[in-house]
Amino acid sequence: MNKEQLFQQIQNKQSYLCVGLDTDIKKIPQHLLKSKDPIFEFNKQIIDATIDSAVAYKPNIAFYEAEGSQGWDSLQKTIEYLPKEVFTIADAKRGDIGNTSSLYARAFFDKMNFDSVTVAPYMGGDSVKPFLEFKNKWVILLALTSNVGSADFQREQLASGEYLFEKVLRKSSEWGNSEELMYVVGATQTDMLEKIRQIIPEHFLLVPGVGAQGGSLKDVSSAGMNSKCGLLVNSSRGIIYASQGNDFAKVAGEEAKKVQVEMAAYLGKYL
Amino acid sequence: MNKEQLFQQIQNKQSYLCVGLDTDIKKIPQHLLKSKDPIFEFNKQIIDATIDSAVAYKPNIAFYEAEGSQGWDSLQKTIEYLPKEVFTIADAKRGDIGNTSSLYARAFFDKMNFDSVTVAPYMGGDSVKPFLEFKNKWVILLALTSNVGSADFQREQLASGEYLFEKVLRKSSEWGNSEELMYVVGATQTDMLEKIRQIIPEHFLLVPGVGAQGGSLKDVSSAGMNSKCGLLVNSSRGIIYASQGNDFAKVAGEEAKKVQVEMAAYLGKYL
Repeated sequence: MNKEQLFQQIQNKQSYLCVGLDTDIKKIPQHLLKSKDPIFEFNKQIIDATIDSAVAYKPNIAFYEAEGSQGWDSLQKTIEYLPKEVFTIADAKRGDIGNTSSLYARAFFDKMNFDSVTVAPYMGGDSVKPFLEFKNKWVILLALTSNVGSADFQREQLASGEYLFEKVLRKSSEWGNSEELMYVVGATQTDMLEKIRQIIPEHFLLVPGVGAQGGSLKDVSSAGMNSKCGLLVNSSRGIIYASQGNDFAKVAGEEAKKVQVEMAAYLGKYL
Repeated sequence: MNKEQLFQQIQNKQSYLCVGLDTDIKKIPQHLLKSKDPIFEFNKQIIDATIDSAVAYKPNIAFYEAEGSQGWDSLQKTIEYLPKEVFTIADAKRGDIGNTSSLYARAFFDKMNFDSVTVAPYMGGDSVKPFLEFKNKWVILLALTSNVGSADFQREQLASGEYLFEKVLRKSSEWGNSEELMYVVGATQTDMLEKIRQIIPEHFLLVPGVGAQGGSLKDVSSAGMNSKCGLLVNSSRGIIYASQGNDFAKVAGEEAKKVQVEMAAYLGKYL
């Protein structure tokens, strides 16, 4: 999927919601455990219930990897089930030396046909670039994450005066343009969003941390939106576990709709 | 496995060799492709041929992930086949927010019973600590990697005067002691090994980059060894693909033996 197609979908659905499929076998409703593949069954019902309100879906790969080869089957079925028009994100936070990063890229882009994969920047350019060689596929690079630990290194000040995450943005934006590279910026980091938009005005940001982690959708939207929206705001637990009863899909759909309505208002105001 | 047991094995075998099981279906000998699980069959023969010369084995997870759920089965069989006395490393370079890192830890430590997993530091303390909660299991944190891209951020100088990788060493050594935490330091980075040993004199280092990437075993050993050896030097391609013919296992065994003999000399000299 290219940037224009993504923006079209955002305008059509009046939404920049990404639903995080962090599907934990221990948290899904009991009655699903009887089905042949409970994780896929849960995802399928969540997707059906939220598809009108969401433009992107993001399975966090850890949840599938924790189930071994069976988990990979559930993931494969989920990505095949997702309609072509939505943007798909393998939240894998991978990154290795060049020839090994190529293998990860093949796994997520070729074998599983994800549109994008999240990548960690610590190993530098030659660990990121192999992911950028795939046409119409995206790297989503960790820049400033939503967790407390982001203060440990990402907000470390460099001798040049800038923070490490600013250096990551500046340097990596030489490797890929806004048609192939996005960044993870946590919703809990809105104090930095203006600075970030000065460095990368055109790139999309994938924003986790709204809801359970305490970030504000309004603050993110007002400080982060650009002329192509430029935001994918993720919600995982707040939607998929809004109810843990038999009505989980219906309630997830309602929660997604609420977020979409709020997003439509911000698109009207800040776009 | 604890540190003393690892050191015992190093003394017994007179070796600190780690064999990297970067098993690529496209590179293994043709005749193995007839077997039911060619990747496992290759690993099994490599392990049998090198077990007297190696103290650790390190599958790079990318190679298995690239084969989907079948790859995970090959990995599972490989870890089950490895004798209990060797140290096993899941080279996964994972790291995510806390509850998600816990899932990765469960996948590699509980489901697959690896002794250790490599972790990327960019997301900070709360992304690393969940891996440290497992008794007699190890985190191997990326510090200064062997690839060219390590210059992009790891060698960035901070306002405090130190390099980012030094900060990573200093900060993370508050999270775990040398009984539970090791570091990745590339063999191509020997100019920094003295500095590194000043910050973390007692921790083990996992050293990739000898051989194909150009690092010198002698330089690494003289600058990096401590009183408990403190080194696991990895060789992947230089051993497992030393021959791509029917004699691959025999030749791999001979290559491993050569490295072991050189290591025995350095243990005599620098320990």
